[in-house]
Amino acid sequence: MAEKKIGNQTVRFEKSPYIIGSAAVVGKKEGQGPLAKWFDLCLDDDMYGEKTWEKAESKMLKESMTRALTKSGKTKEDIDLVLSGDLLNQLMSSSFMARELHLPFLGLYGACSTMAESLLLGAMLTDGGFAHNIIAGASSHFCTAERQFRMPVEHGNQRPPSAQWTATATGAMVVSEKPSQIGTVGIAGENRVGTQKQIRVDCGTIGKIIDPGVKDANQMGSAMAPAAVDTILNHLEDTGRRFDYYDLIITGDLGHIGKDIAADLLKDAGIPAGAVDGNYDDCGTMMYYREAQDVHGGASGCGCSASIFAGNILSRMAGGELSRVLLISTGAMLSTISPFQGESIPGIAHAVALEACDMSREGGI
Amino acid sequence: MAEKKIGNQTVRFEKSPYIIGSAAVVGKKEGQGPLAKWFDLCLDDDMYGEKTWEKAESKMLKESMTRALTKSGKTKEDIDLVLSGDLLNQLMSSSFMARELHLPFLGLYGACSTMAESLLLGAMLTDGGFAHNIIAGASSHFCTAERQFRMPVEHGNQRPPSAQWTATATGAMVVSEKPSQIGTVGIAGENRVGTQKQIRVDCGTIGKIIDPGVKDANQMGSAMAPAAVDTILNHLEDTGRRFDYYDLIITGDLGHIGKDIAADLLKDAGIPAGAVDGNYDDCGTMMYYREAQDVHGGASGCGCSASIFAGNILSRMAGGELSRVLLISTGAMLSTISPFQGESIPGIAHAVALEACDMSREGGI
Repeated sequence: MAEKKIGNQTVRFEKSPYIIGSAAVVGKKEGQGPLAKWFDLCLDDDMYGEKTWEKAESKMLKESMTRALTKSGKTKEDIDLVLSGDLLNQLMSSSFMARELHLPFLGLYGACSTMAESLLLGAMLTDGGFAHNIIAGASSHFCTAERQFRMPVEHGNQRPPSAQWTATATGAMVVSEKPSQIGTVGIAGENRVGTQKQIRVDCGTIGKIIDPGVKDANQMGSAMAPAAVDTILNHLEDTGRRFDYYDLIITGDLGHIGKDIAADLLKDAGIPAGAVDGNYDDCGTMMYYREAQDVHGGASGCGCSASIFAGNILSRMAGGELSRVLLISTGAMLSTISPFQGESIPGIAHAVALEACDMSREGGI
Repeated sequence: MAEKKIGNQTVRFEKSPYIIGSAAVVGKKEGQGPLAKWFDLCLDDDMYGEKTWEKAESKMLKESMTRALTKSGKTKEDIDLVLSGDLLNQLMSSSFMARELHLPFLGLYGACSTMAESLLLGAMLTDGGFAHNIIAGASSHFCTAERQFRMPVEHGNQRPPSAQWTATATGAMVVSEKPSQIGTVGIAGENRVGTQKQIRVDCGTIGKIIDPGVKDANQMGSAMAPAAVDTILNHLEDTGRRFDYYDLIITGDLGHIGKDIAADLLKDAGIPAGAVDGNYDDCGTMMYYREAQDVHGGASGCGCSASIFAGNILSRMAGGELSRVLLISTGAMLSTISPFQGESIPGIAHAVALEACDMSREGGI
C-alpha cells in the first residue's frame, strides 16, 4: 500500500472516495446574486418559517443535508456519520440539525474553514474504512453572525469598505466509498446534468494556524490570506504538483481584498503570474454582485465556500467544465473576546483536491 | 481486511493505535482534590502567569500537549496533526494553543465530549494511515466558562445544588501507529511506573445527539446521562460485549446526579446491577472532595474527563490495575442563547475502548 501521508501536511487516498451527492440552500440575497442558478434552493425569506435566525440557519443546514442525501440515491440508513460545523457559539445550528437527523455526529469548528475540514475528515474516515457513506456540511447566516460577532442587525451599523458580508448559505456533500449509482444527478440535479462525470477526492492538505498579526476584525481577508497561501504552497510542495495542474484553485472567503493579497503572495512565492491570474479564484468574490448588492469586501462565512463548492464547483466538475480543482476553505479563528485582550487574528486554511473522471473509469483513476 | 465499521455506530481498528504519551495540567482546586497525585502539574494560581483566564487556559492546554509529547519520546517534528477543542466561543484556547505549536490543526467542538472525540478521531486517522503520530487534547477553565456561560465570577453568583463545577483542567494524549519505545514512562511519568503495559485503542463508538428535554442549564448531568447510556448500550450491542467485559466503564462529567441517573438507566436497560455498581464510574464525581470542596453536583468541563483519562485512568492501565476500559466523554450541546429560544439541551457522548497489553505482545493483541 502506498504511503497515505505525503510531505508534511498532505494526505492522499487509497480508494479516492466519491462525492455522490451535494446540495446548497441559500438566503434571499444570495439568490439574487450571480450564482443563483447553481443553488438547490434560494429562500424568499431568511427566517425560513422559523421564529429565530438561529433556528432558520439550522433548518437550512438540515435541508441541504437532506437534499444532498436524496440526490445521492442513498437513504438515512446508509449514512454512518455526519460531520458539520458553523460559526455559532457551541455550534448551535449543527447541534440542532444533528438532533433532528439523529445520526452519529462529530462537531467541528474551523471558523470559515469548516467545509474543507468536514470534507477532508469525511474523505479520510471513508477511505480509512471507518464509514461507507458520510455527510459533510457547514452553514452560516448573516443575521446570526452579525448579532454574535458584531452589532444587533436592527442597529443598522455602518460597515467599513473592507468588511465582508456573512453569507446566509449552507452546503452539504455525501462522501462515499463507492461511485454514484445514479450518475451526476446527485451533484447537479436533474435539470443541470451535462456529461457524466464522477467526482473523486484525490488528496488533501491540513492547514496550520498562520497569524499575520492583523487585529482588525473588519480585515478578515488580510488575516486569512497568508494561511491560504501557506496551505496552497505546502500542498504543491507535498504533492510535487504545479499550480496549473489544477483547472481551478479556489479559496473560501478571502473576499476582494484578501484575494488580491493572496494572488500577490502567490506570485511573490514564485508561482507564474499567468497561472495565478488564470486559475485562481475566491468564493468570497463570486457570491454577490459587488456594487449592485452593496457588500463592500465580498462574502464570508462557513456557508460561502460550502454552498459554492456544493453548488457551483461540483456541478461544473460533473458537467465536464472543470477536471481538477483544489478547494481551500479559509478560517479566521478569532473570538469575540480575543481582540479585547490585545490578540491578533489566527488564520487557518485546509485544502481538498477533487478530480472529475469518466464513468467508464470509475473503478480507479 | 476485517470490516472496520461494526454495527450502527462503532468503529474498530486494524492496527489498534497506541497511546504512547499523556499528560494532565490542572488548576489549584483540582490539585487539592483526591486525584492530585495523578496529574503532571497542579497550578498554584489559575492565572498561570497570564493576564487573562483565557490565555491561562490556552497555556495550560499547550503545556499538557508539550508534556505528553516529551513523555512520549517523540519530538514536534514527529507529529502530523493536533486535534483539540474546548468550551470557549470560537475555540479560543485551542486556536491560540495551535498558533503556538505551529502544527497542522483540526478544531473540534463536542462540548464536554471533546476528549473522546479528539482521541477517537486521532485513532481513526492514525489507524487509517493518514498520520503516524497525533496529539489529541481538550481543555476547560472554571473562570472562562463561568463568565461565558453563566455569571461574572466577581458577582459571586449563588449556585443551585445540582450545578456542576467546571474543572480548570487540560489533558493531552499522543496517539501513535507504533508502540512506545520507552515504555509506560510516557503515560505515568518516571516516578509512577508500575508494570510495563502498552495501551492500545481497541475500538470506539460515535454518539448521536440525544435530547431528553431538559431545559435547566444547572441540570447538565440529567441532560447528558441519556446520551451516555445510549452510546454505552450501542457500543455493547455493536461489539457483542457484556458490560463486565470492561474493568471500568467511565463517563466524562455527569456528576453525582447524572451518574445516578445513568446507573438507573443502565439497570433499567437490563445491565445487571452488580456490573453497574461494580464497574461503572464518572469523572465528574472523582475530581473533588464532594463536601469539603463545596462543588455541589460534581465536576464538569472538557478538561474534567481529559485530565482524568490522561492522568488517572491511563496511569492505572499502564500500572496493571486496569486492563480494559471504556472511556465515554459526555457533552451538553446547549448554547448561551438556545435556552432563551425555548430549546432544551441536546446531549452527546462518544466512547473509546482501551486495552492494556504486555510489552512482549506489542506486535498485536
